[in-house]
Amino acid sequence: MEIIDKLAELGSRVEPALEKYLLKDTDAEFREAVLYQIKTGGKRLRPALTLAASLAVGGDVDSAIPAAAAVELAHNYSLIFDDIIDHSELRRGKPTLWKKYGITTAILVAVHYRESIAQALNDTRDPAAFHEVMARTLKSLVEGERLDVLFEQAGRMDEPYVKEKRRSDVKLSDYMDMVYKKTGALIETACVFGAMSAGADSRAISMLGGYGRNLGLAFQIGDDIIDVFGHEEVTGKRVGKDVEEHKLGNVVVLLALEELEQDERSEFLSILRKSSIGTSELKRAIELITCTKAREQAEMLRNRYAYEAVKSIEELPGTEGKALLKALAEFIATREF
Amino acid sequence: MEIIDKLAELGSRVEPALEKYLLKDTDAEFREAVLYQIKTGGKRLRPALTLAASLAVGGDVDSAIPAAAAVELAHNYSLIFDDIIDHSELRRGKPTLWKKYGITTAILVAVHYRESIAQALNDTRDPAAFHEVMARTLKSLVEGERLDVLFEQAGRMDEPYVKEKRRSDVKLSDYMDMVYKKTGALIETACVFGAMSAGADSRAISMLGGYGRNLGLAFQIGDDIIDVFGHEEVTGKRVGKDVEEHKLGNVVVLLALEELEQDERSEFLSILRKSSIGTSELKRAIELITCTKAREQAEMLRNRYAYEAVKSIEELPGTEGKALLKALAEFIATREF
Repeated sequence: MEIIDKLAELGSRVEPALEKYLLKDTDAEFREAVLYQIKTGGKRLRPALTLAASLAVGGDVDSAIPAAAAVELAHNYSLIFDDIIDHSELRRGKPTLWKKYGITTAILVAVHYRESIAQALNDTRDPAAFHEVMARTLKSLVEGERLDVLFEQAGRMDEPYVKEKRRSDVKLSDYMDMVYKKTGALIETACVFGAMSAGADSRAISMLGGYGRNLGLAFQIGDDIIDVFGHEEVTGKRVGKDVEEHKLGNVVVLLALEELEQDERSEFLSILRKSSIGTSELKRAIELITCTKAREQAEMLRNRYAYEAVKSIEELPGTEGKALLKALAEFIATREF
Repeated sequence: MEIIDKLAELGSRVEPALEKYLLKDTDAEFREAVLYQIKTGGKRLRPALTLAASLAVGGDVDSAIPAAAAVELAHNYSLIFDDIIDHSELRRGKPTLWKKYGITTAILVAVHYRESIAQALNDTRDPAAFHEVMARTLKSLVEGERLDVLFEQAGRMDEPYVKEKRRSDVKLSDYMDMVYKKTGALIETACVFGAMSAGADSRAISMLGGYGRNLGLAFQIGDDIIDVFGHEEVTGKRVGKDVEEHKLGNVVVLLALEELEQDERSEFLSILRKSSIGTSELKRAIELITCTKAREQAEMLRNRYAYEAVKSIEELPGTEGKALLKALAEFIATREF
């Protein structure tokens, strides 16, 4: 069985808990809207990481379920808002929550998700400690999303804050900071929660945190590569969506910009800064990227983080959990599109 | 000194804690937007209730500060989303958060508020217990807001969920249920948190919960009366805003409808169901209400709940805290507009 299928199987163990916490203190009439977001699918990668991390430090699956559920709910909580913020109408081929039910309902469901997270965390072995990590993590996600939006080079003309604080110059270090906050922090927390659920010592927690942090960065870099070079038939995602959305916060775009000569760099930036980017401009932008070594460099960067992830847990004894975590990092480092 | 000034003075004790939790794990560039909502003012009624409730069961102010801060942050968290949901551009005479900074920033700030609540609750004497009550309370607020929106008789034509589930018939019992969830639950929790912070026994917690629940209902009924009969010069609020917003979820409207004869009832409902309600229609609607005993009945209902609030705590020994709570309930029962 492929590693992704193994993890999906492990992650699916969290399903009953997701429903349990979401339906707690919930009016019958509200249930369908509340469950819609988690029923649109998702690979349950994050809860699988929590469960695998628990196994990797000698814990079991059952005692890590509430924390794993909290992490998956947090992921979906952030997706509901991301889709509103990005005006995204489709996710995994289905209407997004706000598109299906309306903005009011989407906001109310999201707030409800956050309280289900709190209720799940209260079933962990040390609620205060888990609540503290979750609070810091979600503040981090907010900051990452704030930066990602500020790294956009056009759009949001009805948003005074974004117009005022927009960044015209984004360095690779700014990108890494943003991506850690937006993606890495929650994947780090997924792994940390697994170790905490197993009652691991601070050294083991720190190792798994290191694994998650690096894996999260590798994962997001991989996503950025797919965005520019993926095949829609395989990924189900529109190619060049980040460019269309004016984003400097894509590592392939940033690496290409570093390498392009003055004229082409200006041409690329002027496309990114158009209020609306057409098909031919998108094609030209991707052509410009393709002339550079951005793809290879991004892949190298991704693989370096995947390698760091594996290294972070090399001192842990050999277990099924560790094997899963290692296989996932290797999968991310080698996946082709 | 008037009771409202005394409570404001007590409530102001929470200011440093509000800033502390909001600025925890917060980028310097984000601070202004994060603080804007609490700096637009507010009477700090809810944290004052927490502190007074603590005093009323023999506790002190200092140990109730984190819980009081959490309650005030929860109130502002809900206001940020309410203003987005209701497209409100002004609050307390200033631009609402989304109007000033844009929707994206408002959503991100709101999510940040929720995490500051979690961090405040972690500084209480029994984090898991406080987290549990807060989670239930915020789920209740979501449900109350959902019902309030579904009780609107027109508008939100871009919201499929609201269009489908809108209620054409709202009874007084539906209203009480909605108002308890939307307003009463958080005021109840404000008082319960005070008692919990003081380490009170379950009987005292339950008394203060009863006080808060009844006070919250009296408070919202008072707000509904002001909405229809208030003077803009005094209240700073536009008269008839609830009618303009097509709301059946105002007790004065509901009581008037119960009393009106068939023809006038239909006329009133048809005004409420117009996609846009003009000045002359609003005037006519208020005229129709004025012909009924809705105002007196609403005032009686308000006073009954204020009286129940006082009765809930009558067995508590006489303290400064109890005196404040009693005076507030009496103030709400007698305020003129």
